[in-house]
Amino acid sequence: MMKIKIENRPFGPFPTVLVGADVNGKPNYATLGAYGVVSMKPVLYISLKSTHHTTAGVKENGYFSVNIPSADLVQKTDYCGIVSGKTTNKSNVFASFYDDIGKAPMISECPINYLCKVIQTIPIFDFEMFLGEIVAVYANEQCLSDGRPDPIKIDPIIMMDLNYCNLNQVLGTPFKIGRSEVIRCK
Amino acid sequence: MMKIKIENRPFGPFPTVLVGADVNGKPNYATLGAYGVVSMKPVLYISLKSTHHTTAGVKENGYFSVNIPSADLVQKTDYCGIVSGKTTNKSNVFASFYDDIGKAPMISECPINYLCKVIQTIPIFDFEMFLGEIVAVYANEQCLSDGRPDPIKIDPIIMMDLNYCNLNQVLGTPFKIGRSEVIRCK
Repeated sequence: MMKIKIENRPFGPFPTVLVGADVNGKPNYATLGAYGVVSMKPVLYISLKSTHHTTAGVKENGYFSVNIPSADLVQKTDYCGIVSGKTTNKSNVFASFYDDIGKAPMISECPINYLCKVIQTIPIFDFEMFLGEIVAVYANEQCLSDGRPDPIKIDPIIMMDLNYCNLNQVLGTPFKIGRSEVIRCK
Repeated sequence: MMKIKIENRPFGPFPTVLVGADVNGKPNYATLGAYGVVSMKPVLYISLKSTHHTTAGVKENGYFSVNIPSADLVQKTDYCGIVSGKTTNKSNVFASFYDDIGKAPMISECPINYLCKVIQTIPIFDFEMFLGEIVAVYANEQCLSDGRPDPIKIDPIIMMDLNYCNLNQVLGTPFKIGRSEVIRCK
């Protein structure tokens, strides 16, 4: 296996998500790769540039949404990463809906929506990392199998270097498919 | 589009990576979903439980590696998430290699390897988030196309709920495929 040194850059893979916040009373959505978990708790992080339009909305409301776009939304998803809410009204790119508590808009077309309440803000370089406790999760009914999110039906977008990709198939179950190795390695 | 409320849990998607550190002079690898970017800088974060075996190695050496496993390594990858380095020697699960500066082991079989130098440690609940500046990136030669990482050749593993999945195809280019929407929305 020939190894080659390449540029010192984060090539991924990273999931592509749409972060939602109300800014000046209007839904705004930003495309992010900086999203994920940081512990075993039901908490998601997002990291936003301090000067970004969405950042002001997250700070003002103390809530944000994380919306998982499916592959068929790749153009609209990329669009939300190209244009800024400061100069372009992005409230009509998607249909928005709200949980009973309001606080942050979610995208109807996205098969999974997380509503998160900010519990900690960590400045990192010129970005702010928001840790948000998950207070509601919505799923499109047809993207569930036996009541659980089905990754192939959800068809999320994964970024790697200069590519958006979608998912192929299920390879196995975490904490299960590796058990054969446990036996083999004994 | 019928929306259903489901459990308040992080279902993903999250990339699945193997984090490497030398612990007591031996390579050790832990399987993580808590990995990603936090800004536009060439910095990756990982988040590890404070009591984990790998955590001690990251703290001792001030470096960690992030190794991107391909789908054909899913069993060995899951195995490293099932067993702890405290009770099981995981140094022979993969072939390890080192950069000239040493400091953290990397996995030969994984098509992409990031070597990161810890620049900040942030306690989060019972976890520690390590921010690591990327100081070297290695790629398996046959996983590059025109010198750049090719996501389909790399074939990374993405976790969503109780599923490991792989990638299907390239959908488009970030900051490019959305341009048609810019024109349409004007």
